[in-house]
Amino acid sequence: MLKQSYFSIAAMFLLLAVSGYSQDNDSIVIRSIFSEALKDNTAEKNLEYLCKKIGGRLCGSPQAEKAVNWSEETLKKMGLDTVYRQELKVRHWVRGEKESAVVQSKSNGNHDLHVCAIGGSIGTGEKGISARVIEVKEFEELQVLGKKNIEGKIVFFNHPADPTFYYTFNAYGGTAKFRVFGATQAARFGAAAVIVRSATLAHDDFPHTGVMHYADTVKQIPAIAVSTNDADLLSGMLAKDPSLKLTIRTICREEPEAVSYNVIGQLKGTEHPEEVIAFGGHIDSWDIGEGAHDDGAGVVQTIEVLRIFKALGIRPKHTLRVVVFMDEEMDQRGAKRYAQSVKDAAPGTDKHIAAIETDRGGFTPTGFSIDATDQEVGKIQSWKKLLLPYGLYNLEKGGSGVDIRDLKPFGVPLIALVTDSQRYFDYQHAASDTFDKVSPRELQLGSASIAALVYLIDKSELKWRSW
Amino acid sequence: MLKQSYFSIAAMFLLLAVSGYSQDNDSIVIRSIFSEALKDNTAEKNLEYLCKKIGGRLCGSPQAEKAVNWSEETLKKMGLDTVYRQELKVRHWVRGEKESAVVQSKSNGNHDLHVCAIGGSIGTGEKGISARVIEVKEFEELQVLGKKNIEGKIVFFNHPADPTFYYTFNAYGGTAKFRVFGATQAARFGAAAVIVRSATLAHDDFPHTGVMHYADTVKQIPAIAVSTNDADLLSGMLAKDPSLKLTIRTICREEPEAVSYNVIGQLKGTEHPEEVIAFGGHIDSWDIGEGAHDDGAGVVQTIEVLRIFKALGIRPKHTLRVVVFMDEEMDQRGAKRYAQSVKDAAPGTDKHIAAIETDRGGFTPTGFSIDATDQEVGKIQSWKKLLLPYGLYNLEKGGSGVDIRDLKPFGVPLIALVTDSQRYFDYQHAASDTFDKVSPRELQLGSASIAALVYLIDKSELKWRSW
Repeated sequence: MLKQSYFSIAAMFLLLAVSGYSQDNDSIVIRSIFSEALKDNTAEKNLEYLCKKIGGRLCGSPQAEKAVNWSEETLKKMGLDTVYRQELKVRHWVRGEKESAVVQSKSNGNHDLHVCAIGGSIGTGEKGISARVIEVKEFEELQVLGKKNIEGKIVFFNHPADPTFYYTFNAYGGTAKFRVFGATQAARFGAAAVIVRSATLAHDDFPHTGVMHYADTVKQIPAIAVSTNDADLLSGMLAKDPSLKLTIRTICREEPEAVSYNVIGQLKGTEHPEEVIAFGGHIDSWDIGEGAHDDGAGVVQTIEVLRIFKALGIRPKHTLRVVVFMDEEMDQRGAKRYAQSVKDAAPGTDKHIAAIETDRGGFTPTGFSIDATDQEVGKIQSWKKLLLPYGLYNLEKGGSGVDIRDLKPFGVPLIALVTDSQRYFDYQHAASDTFDKVSPRELQLGSASIAALVYLIDKSELKWRSW
Repeated sequence: MLKQSYFSIAAMFLLLAVSGYSQDNDSIVIRSIFSEALKDNTAEKNLEYLCKKIGGRLCGSPQAEKAVNWSEETLKKMGLDTVYRQELKVRHWVRGEKESAVVQSKSNGNHDLHVCAIGGSIGTGEKGISARVIEVKEFEELQVLGKKNIEGKIVFFNHPADPTFYYTFNAYGGTAKFRVFGATQAARFGAAAVIVRSATLAHDDFPHTGVMHYADTVKQIPAIAVSTNDADLLSGMLAKDPSLKLTIRTICREEPEAVSYNVIGQLKGTEHPEEVIAFGGHIDSWDIGEGAHDDGAGVVQTIEVLRIFKALGIRPKHTLRVVVFMDEEMDQRGAKRYAQSVKDAAPGTDKHIAAIETDRGGFTPTGFSIDATDQEVGKIQSWKKLLLPYGLYNLEKGGSGVDIRDLKPFGVPLIALVTDSQRYFDYQHAASDTFDKVSPRELQLGSASIAALVYLIDKSELKWRSW
């Protein structure tokens, strides 16, 4: 008994000494990861290329095709062990001519609003739609107003995003639903079209697009987004003149589905090549901006993770894989295609010990949101001391992201890079999401944060649970 | 014994219950502080006025005078208990005509560099200074080169800021010293002038000014700052053609000292009106930008703290005082004047229980740096749970700021708002420090963070130690 106690204490001290050494060593490696990221401009140049040479990359578009080619070439130039594509079919929605929305008011004359068609919407036809406008703030009001007040009119969803949340993503659900489901909800009451206040906290002139969905059983009507400033303006004009008319014109349309690809590059693990740590962002973006924060940033950050490992000469024990996802914005077909490939892999291969997504903008990272077991979350939280010097204070259980969520049935720990969210919705899905809005340092802190986490997971061998 | 134990346990439970209630209550108040800040645009409008209607506010300038008047009027309109000025004398350095620096190289022709005079520098005279250039990265090189290589030349301090620090202020000391002391160090070896690489981590075309100091015993020579892009360019040209000539021309000069003011506004404490919680930023700024992040943000944030208290109907127990400091950039005369007023106050009055400075840009706050006793630091750290939901994870002992540091001899706990520093030096002291670079949400998180801390200090009565 006594002997065992002594042994335990000795073992404990040994363990402490080893783990102390190990944490010191880890902190040196992580420091070098951050230094490498902060002094290098490869990711910045990659993002500049995506934004300025290619531009908005809506799935199915020629720009998206160029971006796929660019991704493959870029990964091939890096001297990775494997680079390949995963073919998939994507929707091909085309915006057409610049949209317009003109208010015709007896008291205020004509006024052009800043608008854009919402992604996936049908067009109005060449002649456009002219109708009276009925403003609502909530879906529930439609029921109260009923068909008699709504039929033939343009429903104006004017629900401002709630500015009082610290984390702006918490306000998004409350506004995005009007963009996604507004047309269908209004069509049930005979509306001719909908115009939706942009889901941003900023007060400016940029309309924000994004995806919307029709229901099979409800008539499809056109949907456009209006800038927050012009939503306020329209609301004010309606208060003075409820009979004003709005003429909207959108020429958007759905083309036949197109062939597209996820692009994958990897460094083979030295000890467990069959076990994979996957990380990625999405290469498609909305067409009206440059897809800088959403999500060019995520793509170049995760490519950068592999560059950092190579630059520092860190050979991973597990296979490190960057996944450049296609079609996050419209239908998440790339995510589904990737999950299917994991499911279809030969037994004993392609076992994912973690999947990391970065799709919350190239802003200063604040930590990781972890969708995993308490034990896995606890393991990541045990690294807090190593991550805190880089502002990564936030290591909580929570949601991850739509490009990796389909791996959940396979028991993969899912992790999202969390960023400072204050400016994210200023740019998301708008023409203002451009390269100059990304701080190279903030972008690279994201790259380094993911690389540091990948390094720690690779070392610690988070246990992968078979499905 | 037993009885006492029971009593202790009962007391402990009572205490826990009370403190539990109290923390809940505090969290509700802090939530309402943040909500009030995030939904209101007063601070944004104030900053817009300072930046767009007044502009750069160098001490001694007409703009600085306007800004003093604006500060007083703004505070008076708020219905505070007291608003007053503190008179002081300030330097009045004037930039004069736009500066120029032209490289004349046999191999590369002529080339204009993006430059600006460094604050406090003498001018070159109308004709300018033409001389060969000698590039150094460190002060130590001057000694090695000696008078024979330096005399009559323009010394080019080309020390890039170290990008590998997470917290960018840690890189600043390593570069700012060339701006502050470069002219004097080079003049010791007979240099004709100095041109200094801007103390920013960004690679762009903005020269960054800032203050420099001459030594009484060393000849004064002109000092100009050059953008980082042009520092790289000049360095490259020198490598090809070491005999190239540089002609610099600056018309800056020192005018007689001017009268100026700190402006103070306060809400009187209900229980301890003689005890003060002071908070402020500086109203002066460099002349070439709008002084948006540095430090218009700090001024409007601390004015906003009082607006929030009034809007929420929180009557403080101690006197809450906003101090709009003059002359942080040049000589910190406002800071000295304020400290003197605290020292000169009648016994038993104007006792400071805390002083808070915000001068690290209107970026997302990450916490507070606390220059105080371990006990006081511990007290603030005990509020971590209340502050963490707003990203304030960083509550460490550390430096505060130059506008409050003169209160240190009086034993006042000094506190600086710490912000995400990644973009700060992109704009500091440059023409790019403009209103549009400030995110209204990030700005208001700073206001609310200070208000929350002031609320907690006011409640807890951090003990003020008499000097």
